Amino acid sequence: MIKRRLQRVTLQAHQVSSALQINSAIAITPEQRHYLCNVLRLETGAEFIALDRQGGWWLAKLCRDLSDLDIATVIDKLENNSELNSKITLGIAMPKGSNLESVIRQTTELGVRQIVPLFSDRTIIKSGAEIGNQKRDRWQRIAEEASELSVRTYIPEINTPQTLGVWLADLAKSTALALKYICVTSPDTTHLLTSLQSLNTEENFEIIIATGCEGGWTAREEEIAIAAGFIPVSLGDRVLSAVTAPVVALSIVSAFLDTK
Amino acid sequence: MIKRRLQRVTLQAHQVSSALQINSAIAITPEQRHYLCNVLRLETGAEFIALDRQGGWWLAKLCRDLSDLDIATVIDKLENNSELNSKITLGIAMPKGSNLESVIRQTTELGVRQIVPLFSDRTIIKSGAEIGNQKRDRWQRIAEEASELSVRTYIPEINTPQTLGVWLADLAKSTALALKYICVTSPDTTHLLTSLQSLNTEENFEIIIATGCEGGWTAREEEIAIAAGFIPVSLGDRVLSAVTAPVVALSIVSAFLDTK
Repeated sequence: MIKRRLQRVTLQAHQVSSALQINSAIAITPEQRHYLCNVLRLETGAEFIALDRQGGWWLAKLCRDLSDLDIATVIDKLENNSELNSKITLGIAMPKGSNLESVIRQTTELGVRQIVPLFSDRTIIKSGAEIGNQKRDRWQRIAEEASELSVRTYIPEINTPQTLGVWLADLAKSTALALKYICVTSPDTTHLLTSLQSLNTEENFEIIIATGCEGGWTAREEEIAIAAGFIPVSLGDRVLSAVTAPVVALSIVSAFLDTK
Repeated sequence: MIKRRLQRVTLQAHQVSSALQINSAIAITPEQRHYLCNVLRLETGAEFIALDRQGGWWLAKLCRDLSDLDIATVIDKLENNSELNSKITLGIAMPKGSNLESVIRQTTELGVRQIVPLFSDRTIIKSGAEIGNQKRDRWQRIAEEASELSVRTYIPEINTPQTLGVWLADLAKSTALALKYICVTSPDTTHLLTSLQSLNTEENFEIIIATGCEGGWTAREEEIAIAAGFIPVSLGDRVLSAVTAPVVALSIVSAFLDTK
C-alpha cells in the first residue's frame, strides 16, 4: 500500500511512444522537472509513480544521465491501481449547451473509460456537422485534465458524436460480452443497483450505460435499445437532470464494483 | 400510480400559510394560471398535484370562484411521493469559488433535505463574515429551483455556514437517532455502501454525511468527527473532487434506500 502514497505523474504521449519496461529511461519534461524538483522538492534518487496512459503504473526513480540532465529510470512495474475492474462505457444523449463538459469531468473522476455523445430524438443538436473539431478537442482535453486530477491511469476516450441508431448497430457488431443498461424513468422499472446485484457472476463484464438528455428517451428509442439487448433500469424515484443522471449511474456502478 | 403522472405545481409560501386540507381553496397566482391554463391548456375541472413545500401532495382541481376568478380546490390528500424515507443531511466543507452551487443543485435532485456549509481547516473561506446574505439567499433559491425541477415535495434547507466544531456540538445536543458518516480517503476504509448494507434494521434513521473540500479533512477533523460518533467511510478507490464527492455520497445513500 505504501507505494500508492508516492507522487503520481501522468507521462506525456511522446514519453511512452515505446512501451515502458523495467530499466527504461524516461526523459523528464521541463514541467515535470519543475513539479517534481521545485514544487515537491524531490531530490535525485527519489521515487515516484509514472502512469503510462494505458493503465500501467511504474515505479520510477529520479536520476541524472551522463550529461547531468534529469531523467527517470523505471525500477518496477506496480500492480495496484485505482481503476475499476470493468470497462465502463457511457452513451449520453447530448445535454443542452456546454453541460456535457461537467458530465465528462465528473464521470471521469468516477472511472468511466469511454464516453459516446449521442444524438437522440430529443437532443437539440442533431448531427456532427453542428459540432466543431475544436469542441471535440476540448472534450478530450477535459477528460485528460480530470483524469490527471483524479489520478486515473486511463484517460477516457471521448468518441465522435453519433446517432443512437449508429451506436447500437456498432455495439451489435462487437463480440465483447457486455452488460448493457438504458436508464429510463418509467415507474416500476428495476433499480440499476438491484439489477447489478442480481448478477450471479464473478466475471468482470464490460458495462455499457445509456442516459438520456432533457426529457429522456422517447418510447421508440427505448424500444430499439431494448431490442439491441439493453436492460431498462431506474436510477431511483426522483427526477434527475440530464447532467446528474450519468453521475448517479456511474456512482452506482462504481460502488457496486468496489464492494462486490 | 396514475395520479403521479398529473402536472405538479409547488405552491408559494403565502399559498400554504394555513395548512391545506380537503376542500381548501387555493388562490392561483398569475404565473401558475399562465402555466396551467395557457402553457398546459388545462381547463376548468382539470386536476393537478399541488405540493405544499412541507412534503405533502394534494390532488387539486382547477375551478372558478363566485367572482369568476381561477382558483383551485383541494380534493384529496395523496400518500405517494418520490421522497426518500430517511431525512438526509449533508455537511459540506465549502468548495472553492461558486462550486457549492452545483453541489446544492445536484444533491437536491438526489433527495437531500438539509445542507450545512462548513468552514474547515482547509476551506479558503474561514468565517461567515466573508459570505454575504445575498449569497445565502442565492443558495436557497438554487435549492428551490432544483427542488421544483426535480418535482421534490421538500425544499432542502440551506443552513448558515458554520465551523465543523460548532456543527458537531449542535449535533451532539440533538436527541434524534441518526447515522453519521464522514467521507475520508484513507485506504482500507469501509465503503459507504458496505457500511449501509451492514445495517440490520428496518427503521428509517436520519442519515448525516460529511464531505471535505479540496484536500479533504485534516487528521484532526477526522478525529473530532469520529469522537462525535461519525463513522469514517470511503466513496471508492478513485480520487473525487470536492464537487463530485457529495453527489456520489447522495447517489449511494439514495440507491441504498430505494432498493432496501
